[in-house]
Amino acid sequence: MDTGEPVNPDDFRLFSGSSNPAFAKAVAAYLGVPCSPARAGHYSNDSLFVQLGASVRARTVLIVQSLSPPVNEHVMELLMMLDAARTAAAREVHAVIPYFAYARSDKKDAPRISIAGRLVARLIETAGATHVMTMSLHSPQVHGFFDLPTDPLTARPAFEAYFQRQDLAQAVVVSPDAGRVHTASRFAQRLGLPLAVGNKTRISDREVRVSGLIGDVAGRQRAILYDDEIASGASAVEVVRLLAQHHIEHVWVVCTHGVFAGDALRRLSALPQVQEILTTDTVPIAGASRVDKLRVLSVAPLFGEAIRRNYRRESIGDLFTFWQDFKSED
Amino acid sequence: MDTGEPVNPDDFRLFSGSSNPAFAKAVAAYLGVPCSPARAGHYSNDSLFVQLGASVRARTVLIVQSLSPPVNEHVMELLMMLDAARTAAAREVHAVIPYFAYARSDKKDAPRISIAGRLVARLIETAGATHVMTMSLHSPQVHGFFDLPTDPLTARPAFEAYFQRQDLAQAVVVSPDAGRVHTASRFAQRLGLPLAVGNKTRISDREVRVSGLIGDVAGRQRAILYDDEIASGASAVEVVRLLAQHHIEHVWVVCTHGVFAGDALRRLSALPQVQEILTTDTVPIAGASRVDKLRVLSVAPLFGEAIRRNYRRESIGDLFTFWQDFKSED
Amino acid sequence: MDTGEPVNPDDFRLFSGSSNPAFAKAVAAYLGVPCSPARAGHYSNDSLFVQLGASVRARTVLIVQSLSPPVNEHVMELLMMLDAARTAAAREVHAVIPYFAYARSDKKDAPRISIAGRLVARLIETAGATHVMTMSLHSPQVHGFFDLPTDPLTARPAFEAYFQRQDLAQAVVVSPDAGRVHTASRFAQRLGLPLAVGNKTRISDREVRVSGLIGDVAGRQRAILYDDEIASGASAVEVVRLLAQHHIEHVWVVCTHGVFAGDALRRLSALPQVQEILTTDTVPIAGASRVDKLRVLSVAPLFGEAIRRNYRRESIGDLFTFWQDFKSED
Amino acid sequence: MDTGEPVNPDDFRLFSGSSNPAFAKAVAAYLGVPCSPARAGHYSNDSLFVQLGASVRARTVLIVQSLSPPVNEHVMELLMMLDAARTAAAREVHAVIPYFAYARSDKKDAPRISIAGRLVARLIETAGATHVMTMSLHSPQVHGFFDLPTDPLTARPAFEAYFQRQDLAQAVVVSPDAGRVHTASRFAQRLGLPLAVGNKTRISDREVRVSGLIGDVAGRQRAILYDDEIASGASAVEVVRLLAQHHIEHVWVVCTHGVFAGDALRRLSALPQVQEILTTDTVPIAGASRVDKLRVLSVAPLFGEAIRRNYRRESIGDLFTFWQDFKSED
Amino acid sequence: MDTGEPVNPDDFRLFSGSSNPAFAKAVAAYLGVPCSPARAGHYSNDSLFVQLGASVRARTVLIVQSLSPPVNEHVMELLMMLDAARTAAAREVHAVIPYFAYARSDKKDAPRISIAGRLVARLIETAGATHVMTMSLHSPQVHGFFDLPTDPLTARPAFEAYFQRQDLAQAVVVSPDAGRVHTASRFAQRLGLPLAVGNKTRISDREVRVSGLIGDVAGRQRAILYDDEIASGASAVEVVRLLAQHHIEHVWVVCTHGVFAGDALRRLSALPQVQEILTTDTVPIAGASRVDKLRVLSVAPLFGEAIRRNYRRESIGDLFTFWQDFKSED
Amino acid sequence: MDTGEPVNPDDFRLFSGSSNPAFAKAVAAYLGVPCSPARAGHYSNDSLFVQLGASVRARTVLIVQSLSPPVNEHVMELLMMLDAARTAAAREVHAVIPYFAYARSDKKDAPRISIAGRLVARLIETAGATHVMTMSLHSPQVHGFFDLPTDPLTARPAFEAYFQRQDLAQAVVVSPDAGRVHTASRFAQRLGLPLAVGNKTRISDREVRVSGLIGDVAGRQRAILYDDEIASGASAVEVVRLLAQHHIEHVWVVCTHGVFAGDALRRLSALPQVQEILTTDTVPIAGASRVDKLRVLSVAPLFGEAIRRNYRRESIGDLFTFWQDFKSED
Repeated sequence: MDTGEPVNPDDFRLFSGSSNPAFAKAVAAYLGVPCSPARAGHYSNDSLFVQLGASVRARTVLIVQSLSPPVNEHVMELLMMLDAARTAAAREVHAVIPYFAYARSDKKDAPRISIAGRLVARLIETAGATHVMTMSLHSPQVHGFFDLPTDPLTARPAFEAYFQRQDLAQAVVVSPDAGRVHTASRFAQRLGLPLAVGNKTRISDREVRVSGLIGDVAGRQRAILYDDEIASGASAVEVVRLLAQHHIEHVWVVCTHGVFAGDALRRLSALPQVQEILTTDTVPIAGASRVDKLRVLSVAPLFGEAIRRNYRRESIGDLFTFWQDFKSED
Repeated sequence: MDTGEPVNPDDFRLFSGSSNPAFAKAVAAYLGVPCSPARAGHYSNDSLFVQLGASVRARTVLIVQSLSPPVNEHVMELLMMLDAARTAAAREVHAVIPYFAYARSDKKDAPRISIAGRLVARLIETAGATHVMTMSLHSPQVHGFFDLPTDPLTARPAFEAYFQRQDLAQAVVVSPDAGRVHTASRFAQRLGLPLAVGNKTRISDREVRVSGLIGDVAGRQRAILYDDEIASGASAVEVVRLLAQHHIEHVWVVCTHGVFAGDALRRLSALPQVQEILTTDTVPIAGASRVDKLRVLSVAPLFGEAIRRNYRRESIGDLFTFWQDFKSED
Repeated sequence: MDTGEPVNPDDFRLFSGSSNPAFAKAVAAYLGVPCSPARAGHYSNDSLFVQLGASVRARTVLIVQSLSPPVNEHVMELLMMLDAARTAAAREVHAVIPYFAYARSDKKDAPRISIAGRLVARLIETAGATHVMTMSLHSPQVHGFFDLPTDPLTARPAFEAYFQRQDLAQAVVVSPDAGRVHTASRFAQRLGLPLAVGNKTRISDREVRVSGLIGDVAGRQRAILYDDEIASGASAVEVVRLLAQHHIEHVWVVCTHGVFAGDALRRLSALPQVQEILTTDTVPIAGASRVDKLRVLSVAPLFGEAIRRNYRRESIGDLFTFWQDFKSED
Repeated sequence: MDTGEPVNPDDFRLFSGSSNPAFAKAVAAYLGVPCSPARAGHYSNDSLFVQLGASVRARTVLIVQSLSPPVNEHVMELLMMLDAARTAAAREVHAVIPYFAYARSDKKDAPRISIAGRLVARLIETAGATHVMTMSLHSPQVHGFFDLPTDPLTARPAFEAYFQRQDLAQAVVVSPDAGRVHTASRFAQRLGLPLAVGNKTRISDREVRVSGLIGDVAGRQRAILYDDEIASGASAVEVVRLLAQHHIEHVWVVCTHGVFAGDALRRLSALPQVQEILTTDTVPIAGASRVDKLRVLSVAPLFGEAIRRNYRRESIGDLFTFWQDFKSED
Repeated sequence: MDTGEPVNPDDFRLFSGSSNPAFAKAVAAYLGVPCSPARAGHYSNDSLFVQLGASVRARTVLIVQSLSPPVNEHVMELLMMLDAARTAAAREVHAVIPYFAYARSDKKDAPRISIAGRLVARLIETAGATHVMTMSLHSPQVHGFFDLPTDPLTARPAFEAYFQRQDLAQAVVVSPDAGRVHTASRFAQRLGLPLAVGNKTRISDREVRVSGLIGDVAGRQRAILYDDEIASGASAVEVVRLLAQHHIEHVWVVCTHGVFAGDALRRLSALPQVQEILTTDTVPIAGASRVDKLRVLSVAPLFGEAIRRNYRRESIGDLFTFWQDFKSED
Repeated sequence: MDTGEPVNPDDFRLFSGSSNPAFAKAVAAYLGVPCSPARAGHYSNDSLFVQLGASVRARTVLIVQSLSPPVNEHVMELLMMLDAARTAAAREVHAVIPYFAYARSDKKDAPRISIAGRLVARLIETAGATHVMTMSLHSPQVHGFFDLPTDPLTARPAFEAYFQRQDLAQAVVVSPDAGRVHTASRFAQRLGLPLAVGNKTRISDREVRVSGLIGDVAGRQRAILYDDEIASGASAVEVVRLLAQHHIEHVWVVCTHGVFAGDALRRLSALPQVQEILTTDTVPIAGASRVDKLRVLSVAPLFGEAIRRNYRRESIGDLFTFWQDFKSED
């Protein structure tokens, strides 16, 4: 009976950090509430200040912030907005983090490092978040770093809905490396496609070698390269070249978080095999670096719906079917 | 200059829980210290009591406990021993957990479940551990659930050392499913072998279907089935059968934690393709259920050495080379 | 004006652990709400999993679990259910623990033991309880181990109501040992009876010696042996024999928590002096071990009423008069 | 080998609060260390200030403070001294509290009260104590309110040693009420004496009625009235009168903590049956109110020895035999 | 639309500690709710007990307590009332502290002292406050010691409103020392007056020397001596004498918190230059020590309004204009 | 006997963040220990990684990091280094923060802002610092935001030592605004000079108006403008112009933390009245922006000595006399 009921705008405040205001506005629009103003800036000694521009007292407060570059500025801004809400006596403080850049620092693979994904999760708790909403972390265990109620959303159904409308004859799903097999395997199963895995060795953060493919791509003509995040694009470029060696000339490059650092977008786009680069709007993409082959699916309605259900105490378990019902714009 | 120096027995107390006393004694023997007595039992209302049998005041205390079945009895016993040490004014309290059974509960893959791996990690902190030492968790991210200094050990080098003495011609490493590809891939690289991955669908906890293999095993004659833990053995049996269909008649079954519930050991052993079942002593294996094909490598010296280095403030980063130096018994 | 108003079923979720489902259902029935389903089981490595079967988001959640044998299984199940509720964003999480088996571990009467009553209280907080409801702990100080709002309920008024309908001529209340004098004394005062105290020496958990009685029982003909919990029954058997030596041939054995381990019930029942064994339903009693002399009073309505008042913000201070108003079934 | 070794004065700082400096000095003398100066006083707005007069950096620090009247001044002074030590980077901060006045507030026996014993325990932790040492709390469960290593000491052996030198023919131990039976019973057992219990009803804090005695005192000629604390003395006066009615004309009044509020000491002393009032020096007794029948046993050596053993990492489990070895001054 | 709506008396409980019941009643009267009874007293061993006299379960609870002398009694009473409310399951617990005596202990200006302002803030959190409301702390940074939502109120607008009705020709605002310049400067700006600052050296808590004035008072005829708190009055007396040397014969002495220890009020009043001593009712002033020159402005309506806005979720940012709207009694 | 003893290099690790390596090296040189390597960098998605390059297990670890621009990068790097040290089992983790940029965010002077000084202090605790060392925070209360042992150092004695060698005839100390009067006043007293205060109104972060001076500068010929931090330099420029109007043509500009954002240094230097700009090395000054009038005093020896005394458990209370003993380089 609660189903579909809206949030109460007087009881609810949504603020956007400076990382991705278009996304925050799209979420607010879905919810039918204003995106309340927040002031942020730097003092002359470069320290940050923020002020929330609407009363939060005893209300449900959402802070929407992607940890897109400059990452640490956005982390600190998020922490200060959470702290401001908490100490101004908000009833609940939700950190809505479409893109959580530190998710890849999720294990101790060298001595004396910080598992930064966990550290940032703890900082977010210290600052005052009482609930966290993110999308597609690098590994699902990272949610466990937040010792708070957490709603992990995924863009997979959006991608599935998209590909169910494409011609997938002789297609194969390709995971760029072993770390992503789990998710790619579920994606492939849903589309009824086989799976191949890149045999990747990381030489440095920016340099990788993909020495081969595990799984049979012989005779395949199309590939969906499926990743959670593309930053430098080095892996993707390598895998596309390897696929070309196997005579696959039609590649969709798919990633939830399109960070596209430097000229990544242009390099990927320049590969003739790449037909389309499909991503979401969790990370803003500067107009200047947009390319023709890029297609951006908005996940703001998904976040909006998850927020609405949270607020209305409805289950969010069946959000996976959201995309069947949602009138997508494309 | 600290190198190789022993622990000071007067400053150091090692206690064993009731799960795996042979392992604790082997660790103590490596360290040249006694395994101090601990009394545990049940009151007539079935609640547990424990008492540490040697003064821990201002000392370094180790509680050695595997979370082997009956798991929850062993969890509670561990928690009570940690609490007893903490409140008796131990200087440091190390939880040494060779087998952490709850590691597989590491993500929220269904609504309204507990990420039990994280919960148990938090309980261990609450009880009073100041440092945790475990081996080969199901996914490396689980270490991040412990918000304490943690030393993750691995038995992989022991297995590598073992296989470097075997005939690996025409061999392939097989990961039973996508979740284990990451580790198996590193293992295969070290041995210079190719990798194949089982395409597993879990029907229930005790029933799985392995519908095929990703990666080419054609022409291979031997396989190393590499897993972190074998409990019911259902996956392993399925994969061995699949390998048999590919004419692989020589299979080593390898797992760090040999839980071998029910008749798992007998069922695996009965398969003619299985040449050897290789595991470690993190979980005690009842004499009655031992089979001829079973070979157990002791990792007690590895734990002992890690403990010694901790105590002596030496780096444990190079424990991976430990097995080259260590005179193994086999 | 709130008085007597029911709970709102849409705002309220009651789940039962596996220890005492009949009790949970009786509480739910009193409240007029369903007992929501919860799934629990063991993986093949014996670790536990639980899943709450109804949305708890922003609702008042109750987890009903007795710490009856197997105690540690029930402790862990309780902790996992609390954690599941907490991390699924419940508004409040009430641990309703009719029988708290660890209450007897309430002091440090030997070096290097855990005060397990406090440890388990802290674990329950760590897991996520925000409120605790229990009955008749061994000593009233144990409530202080919970650093949470706690409602300590007592079955004493139920027993008083029962005995006010019995013939108490020449009766005496007997406390089995010094530790229970305080409560027994209050019970005796309410019934206008004298008090005697067993001079007990505990030899081991299962063996006690009651060397005599403090207080005059000469000339008394009936005795009410009043205890909080009977597990092995050793003390009770000893005291009944001592009373027989004083020519008391009619004994009511009364305890709040009837754990009745092993053949305790049969041994007690076999004593000719024992007329009746009176207990409550906080601990389930297997049909097989039921005996004719056993009478079980249900305290589920008392818990239900306390929960209702909590929810409706009514005082629970006057729950002591509850039994006058409540239409008991016997 | 550590046995009997002294503390290192350079590594160790003992400060006295203003409640009981004679006691602190006696402890320091036993340990062979100075009692370092501490400055305390009130600003003109009545707020308190304290300053520790010796460097505590990276040292073991002891703050000795009895919670004798004015209790709340002494609580705040203790908390501020603990905080000063903690924030000046002490390595360990021990709160040595010979008399913990709030121990009697140990349960929720009325709605909407504070269990003040637990609250003060938590405040002491918040302020920075890492270890607590107290004597004979009202009920042993109160130790559990401190979630820290705690050493509960008892004066019982000192009293036993004293009475083993007295003529105890036809003597009986009397507990003033049910709440103290447990301890009095152990005391009686050690002296081989029978036990009787006062049937006390508390009318108000200052008025009690002791309506009778449980247990047989017929034919007894001497009584040891054994309590943990005497403040107003109302109970003791009542019990002595009751004993007089049973023709017991020789009463030792024994209590660990001699608070003796108002004219308690004079009123007790004026009763002809009272032969001696035996207490310890945990609470200072003003010279003016001292009476001839008063005998004070010092427990400062016991505290000193417990501190020394703590520091030297020796067990304190056998402190019960301390009084056999210790050359008492009387 | 919420504006001006009252609190719901059934959902709201206001209790007064024993420090300033008249103030609490005035706040309750402003809010139109009763001041619920609370019982407090001392046991015969001088420890404190408190009981809240109305159910707080799931309600908004306010504890009103000034930290006026005897300060530590009032601190402990506050802590116990907060703890009682918290553990009786209040929904929110607001500590309303009109005068926070420990605010002056705000920095580490000597080694090994406690920053008592912070310590007391932490104790208040430990006891269970979820929100704090105070007035005019000595330095604004002290609010940061409370890691809770905090509403800092100020009496400055009340004083400004008062002086806007006085003849301020040739007047100057005087800050007694450098530490108060910041606030006095804002006050002077609002009244359009120049500012002078006492050059104070503190010899001891009760003795100060004011050696001169920074800023030009030549030709000025009236002065407003503006301070946050007057306890011993030593500074004020010194400054008035210095002003007299500069031929200023008309001085208003203004302070938010009129502690007036000892004969401070009479000494100040006896100075012929002092025309009026203006303070508020945050600290109760005994009738006996009242003097003719004393004028007390009530800030209870300001606290009441701030509480009402909190409860009604209105902004309290514009409370500075409160005094324009409020019909003051004078 | 500890006096002057060095630290034990094997027990001690000092790491430098990337903000001010020259300072860290100078501190290490003073202490006679190496500055251990630390690796830091950004992944291609702009998230940060750090690795400590030497074992920290059971050692005293120092992380030296100024919060100089880019401030938030340096905050995050500090937090990750602290976390890396904590979780690699360091015994103590000292955050040495010569310049704490967030100190100016110390109060809630507008609604719904974060008191960022406190927030960052709490983040530093969450990350794992056990002790903090900083210099000259904007207000001394800010130290109280760290709920850890904290050593606040000051450069004032260094400046005093410097000016005691200058010609101070007819000189006056000038505080740029009311907020700094307290410190400037102490500085003036030590040099025996009068004090004047700027009457500053802040228009925005970068624009201020200083409308006049409180205090008499008539006839003065030299001024020492004394501030804690200069960033944009706007205030200083304003005050120097105002002093010029009062015919003061010789101005020393003094500040502890020379942030000198943008062209601040050049603008100040261009004023003919400015004779010298005196600062310390807490913030690195790029060679390019150095000007002739700039003189930098190193406070690295002061930090080094404070660290040494901490380590050697000596008092640091008398560090104020450090500069008399220390052979300064100028």
